[in-house]
Amino acid sequence: MSRQRPKDLTALSAHEAARAIREGVISSVELVGACLARIDAREPEIEAWAHLDPELALSEAREADSALARGDDVGPLHGVPVGAKDIFDTSDFPTENGSPVFAGRRPERDATCVDALRNAGAIIIGKTVTTELALLTPARTRNPANLAHTPGGSSAGSAAAVADHMVPAALGSQTAGSIIRPASFCGVYGFKPTLGLVPRRGVLMQSHTLDTVGLYGRCVEDLALVTDYMTAIDPDDVVSFRRSRPPLLGTTRARPPVPPRFAFVKPPPWIDADKDMQAALEALVAKLGDRAIEIEMPVLADVIEFQRIVQLAENALYYGPLLDEAPEHISPGLTKRLEEGRAVDAQAYLRAITGREPAYRAVAAGMRGFSAILTAAALGPAPEGFAATGSPIMNGLWTYLGMPTVSLPLLEAKGLPVGVQLVGLRHDDARLLRTARWLAEEFMA
Amino acid sequence: MSRQRPKDLTALSAHEAARAIREGVISSVELVGACLARIDAREPEIEAWAHLDPELALSEAREADSALARGDDVGPLHGVPVGAKDIFDTSDFPTENGSPVFAGRRPERDATCVDALRNAGAIIIGKTVTTELALLTPARTRNPANLAHTPGGSSAGSAAAVADHMVPAALGSQTAGSIIRPASFCGVYGFKPTLGLVPRRGVLMQSHTLDTVGLYGRCVEDLALVTDYMTAIDPDDVVSFRRSRPPLLGTTRARPPVPPRFAFVKPPPWIDADKDMQAALEALVAKLGDRAIEIEMPVLADVIEFQRIVQLAENALYYGPLLDEAPEHISPGLTKRLEEGRAVDAQAYLRAITGREPAYRAVAAGMRGFSAILTAAALGPAPEGFAATGSPIMNGLWTYLGMPTVSLPLLEAKGLPVGVQLVGLRHDDARLLRTARWLAEEFMA
Repeated sequence: MSRQRPKDLTALSAHEAARAIREGVISSVELVGACLARIDAREPEIEAWAHLDPELALSEAREADSALARGDDVGPLHGVPVGAKDIFDTSDFPTENGSPVFAGRRPERDATCVDALRNAGAIIIGKTVTTELALLTPARTRNPANLAHTPGGSSAGSAAAVADHMVPAALGSQTAGSIIRPASFCGVYGFKPTLGLVPRRGVLMQSHTLDTVGLYGRCVEDLALVTDYMTAIDPDDVVSFRRSRPPLLGTTRARPPVPPRFAFVKPPPWIDADKDMQAALEALVAKLGDRAIEIEMPVLADVIEFQRIVQLAENALYYGPLLDEAPEHISPGLTKRLEEGRAVDAQAYLRAITGREPAYRAVAAGMRGFSAILTAAALGPAPEGFAATGSPIMNGLWTYLGMPTVSLPLLEAKGLPVGVQLVGLRHDDARLLRTARWLAEEFMA
Repeated sequence: MSRQRPKDLTALSAHEAARAIREGVISSVELVGACLARIDAREPEIEAWAHLDPELALSEAREADSALARGDDVGPLHGVPVGAKDIFDTSDFPTENGSPVFAGRRPERDATCVDALRNAGAIIIGKTVTTELALLTPARTRNPANLAHTPGGSSAGSAAAVADHMVPAALGSQTAGSIIRPASFCGVYGFKPTLGLVPRRGVLMQSHTLDTVGLYGRCVEDLALVTDYMTAIDPDDVVSFRRSRPPLLGTTRARPPVPPRFAFVKPPPWIDADKDMQAALEALVAKLGDRAIEIEMPVLADVIEFQRIVQLAENALYYGPLLDEAPEHISPGLTKRLEEGRAVDAQAYLRAITGREPAYRAVAAGMRGFSAILTAAALGPAPEGFAATGSPIMNGLWTYLGMPTVSLPLLEAKGLPVGVQLVGLRHDDARLLRTARWLAEEFMA
């Protein structure tokens, strides 16, 4: 092989790793072994993993290497380790949903998207820590960027594991801000695709209107590559849409025909945001010159409230029975939240649900002539301490509108990473990722 | 022309009338004139019409005849008069939704389905009486089968007008039982297609989850013919489905490849149904021999409750603002209903909404091996008096499940018509109508 062997295997992106394995530059056993060694060294401090099985991962890596040695055709993620938040059902690991209610639970089947990743050749190296039932009560994970700070939530372990080079990519999920906020806090790339792009069968349901599968990676290209193997129509999923899902990777890798234009948006909570983060974003916008223009979107105030109401009411529908059956296993914070959800009346819920499409049309109209919305990924850098996971308010509104969003780890504030959030039109995931890649490269240059 | 001129033009079905006009056997002016004469004679007793404009209808008929005289290509409903319930927006008639709140309201645009009928050549001869806001408070219309009885509701005028030979076909709508129940009471053919088959833009909204456009006709063929020109994808309608809408008429006219088999279903309210109607249905089932088998569907009890909750809550969402703005124009019965709807909590609403697909799957599984469900179209014949419009409970459950249903005027009880309700799988409208035609012909034979 003519290619040079990379020095630090744990720094490889998923697409680099897949190519290196395919071309025999490295073996899957070497890569998985390097990831396990990194986990072994760092896990006592980070606590990103809920379930690990090094022997299983290594035996799958050996099988992957044998297949290559035999000259088998292999999938595009062949031999690449991937982590999965512990709300994705896996047949070979427990899936405990971050709650003692599900202690020791072992699903019989993989989630559809986990199956899809295995089908593409990926190795599920372990399950990452989630907050309680993928909601707000923090888990034990620490932020690799500063161990005294929260990594955010709910996909805390996945974000921290990718940030700490324990694994090149990891699955997360977002109902309000559970992918994008930890990506911003930990300084990794995060992607929440268009609602309904990736099937949710086998993933803990907390809100059928909002729950979205997404992931973390080390570059924009990986977000496209991994998502491409999870997209599918699922007739049993109420938000699954019946239309073609064009591959993301080719478009993501392409150069935009003209440089993108950004609608710089400050949703209402911007006024409460960290001033240093505001300054960092404003500086980025200034650097973009006439490629970024500030736009008002007054409808967003309603959208924030709509998302709040819908998530509260649907959380109570799905988790209320757990509270009735095992109140001793539900945290006080979640108990309070579920009681609040049960008190929502149908009129408020219906106003929120029926307000979504008109609000989306207003936002889409405001985006005309722009490639993407550019906005903050959180209210600021990761808060200190572990009493809370930070506010998802800068994310929930886009989740509610079903729009694809990405967080790019391009900025800093107070010595901590902060993400740039880009938001695209529904079903326009590929162009959003292409725009994101352009911005990341432009900014890094 | 070789064809014989029919004696009573008002007895023609829509497809017979369209053919006779196209072939020059009759003119549109003659047909419209005959309908107007019939209305003139009978309207004082029936009170089926909210708005009529004989001059406008005749001038459109003259235009239709001129087009034919010129040798123009014409649409499949060319020159055929059709009535529309007064909740369908029309640009040339007021649309008052059966409520003083909307007195004198004149929409600028036709409803999408009204436009579609005009496009096919139909003449909108007038607007038919609806109950208050298409709900339960009766209007003034009488049942042509017995003037002392209600015609049912809410599409009272459309059902009565078709039954009384004032017009060959008329549009209705159903949220619980507003098409099928009046069809049964008045002794006409009624059709509520699969939810989302016909666009609802320009039709009064009382429940986005339930409202369905349908119609009355004088035979099964007409139900297919008229519906065929109204089906369309509407991306702005949340229940519109993105799949092909195969033409209904060809299949409806075909002979079933094997004689249909019927699942005879008695939903829970059957125990309260009129005994004479029960006997008439049982006799029909006995006559069908091994082509009809009684099937239990225990899930239907839940479905009835789901429909009730969803309609109550969504009614309050759409009509609540009217109650706030003009309480003096809302009847006491509707006021009470809207207050009840406002008290529904989001958990009850969500349980109902999320229960729909599992319930549909259970019903569809129970229908395996059968062409259609055969059941009662109402709790009995039209009740005497005008204090109420009868119960929609035998219809609301199928409406909730989004399934196509048809009422066939094949039976009698206590000297009044009662319908046979057939229910098909979603998107299987064509086969349902083919089955319905088979049963109508078999029974009439």
